[in-house]
Amino acid sequence: MKIKELDLLKKMKHKITPTHPRANSLVIREKLVEGFNNGIVVPHGLIAHGRGEAFDYLLGEKTTKFAYEAEKVAVCLMLLSKKPIISINGNTAALCARDLVTLSNVTKSRIEVNLFHKSTARSSAIASILKKENAIVVLGLDNKSKTIIENISSNRKFVDKNGIMNSDTIFLALEDGDRTENLVKMGKKVISVDLNPLSRTAIVSNVTIVDNIVRVIPNMIKIAKQLVKKDKQYLLRLVNSFNNKENMHKSLLMIKKGI
Amino acid sequence: MKIKELDLLKKMKHKITPTHPRANSLVIREKLVEGFNNGIVVPHGLIAHGRGEAFDYLLGEKTTKFAYEAEKVAVCLMLLSKKPIISINGNTAALCARDLVTLSNVTKSRIEVNLFHKSTARSSAIASILKKENAIVVLGLDNKSKTIIENISSNRKFVDKNGIMNSDTIFLALEDGDRTENLVKMGKKVISVDLNPLSRTAIVSNVTIVDNIVRVIPNMIKIAKQLVKKDKQYLLRLVNSFNNKENMHKSLLMIKKGI
Repeated sequence: MKIKELDLLKKMKHKITPTHPRANSLVIREKLVEGFNNGIVVPHGLIAHGRGEAFDYLLGEKTTKFAYEAEKVAVCLMLLSKKPIISINGNTAALCARDLVTLSNVTKSRIEVNLFHKSTARSSAIASILKKENAIVVLGLDNKSKTIIENISSNRKFVDKNGIMNSDTIFLALEDGDRTENLVKMGKKVISVDLNPLSRTAIVSNVTIVDNIVRVIPNMIKIAKQLVKKDKQYLLRLVNSFNNKENMHKSLLMIKKGI
Repeated sequence: MKIKELDLLKKMKHKITPTHPRANSLVIREKLVEGFNNGIVVPHGLIAHGRGEAFDYLLGEKTTKFAYEAEKVAVCLMLLSKKPIISINGNTAALCARDLVTLSNVTKSRIEVNLFHKSTARSSAIASILKKENAIVVLGLDNKSKTIIENISSNRKFVDKNGIMNSDTIFLALEDGDRTENLVKMGKKVISVDLNPLSRTAIVSNVTIVDNIVRVIPNMIKIAKQLVKKDKQYLLRLVNSFNNKENMHKSLLMIKKGI
């Protein structure tokens, strides 16, 4: 456990030791509640986190070999893309802001804040956290460069002209089906992280990572540092030999086995 | 859908029609967020709700015949008990205050507010909601009649001398394993509602209802109105022929089948 996480354990109202069987899950939960108290996570984000917790519990709270394979392909896709971008919301910023910035650096991806429950204050608070972790440019804040994606009914339709709108590959950490479907229809490659392999997001994405975001990003950083040295042909072979539907189905079987 | 629920749909920021495939789940979620805004639900309660949502999704969001059987036995147990009590927290009050009061009337059970994240303001707010729904006595508010259950580390250890402490059967809607274990050790009959049949609460309870609380309470009211007319022998036979572990295992298989 990292120092920051040990500190969070100490701050908890109901004392939890680092050896508690659910300490990791409780620390992650506490980070979300802290994010909520800091105004970057919304009530609906807390509920969404709970859903993820349940699926993660059924997965045994570890990265399966199928998830790792998807993470590897996701990195390949980002390294092969001309304009990859990482879309960030309140929950992901609360859980792993530093790692997201590192991933964006290693994969040369831009970062855009894109929220379902949108407010200027919240966007700014999320951008501040990312900048504190050394993000240089954070898109999605400037109203002048905003444009609209048709057919998305939520506030997620507002995207940056120079960000999500003109990207070729989008890493959507924690998603909703509506946006994913429309981005795929627009011809973009979509990578999503979703612990529920039965969700609409999981089904329509090009690469679906059925794993917890707090494990996904560190894994992807490690993978990216290795793969960035490889040539394009090598990366392309990995992407072309990947079958997303089959991979997701295997994750589903892991969950089934876990029950 | 009831009028109150249709109103909630209308109030939602992102318009949802009553025919939306996830309208029911979204309305329940909105009730929780409303409860949160009214100060009766805590951030951790929202996360817990999300976990329940995921398991309910895997159950197909309906009462299985095994859950219905457990609900029937739970009613029998409450009708057979000398001092049954219903323990209420923020989430249950936000989701089904009126139905809980009705159930307490039909089964002649008392009501006690018992919180993990305790505060006087929150206890009072929950009691007000219950009283608005015609609850006559709400226990768990008077500090003078408070006593402590040993071995429970959270604030749930504070119970009413004349409530949970001297009850013989406790209906714990939405639970934590620590309290359940200790109440069972004290020789009390514990009925719990938990959508995760693998949880410690589910495993140690005398009767475990693997179903969504918003379906459980209306079902139990209906059952109680029928069973209240039956003699004790009839109720006892139902209780004695029930095998909780076997029943839970069948719920687990239903979830597995659903995946």
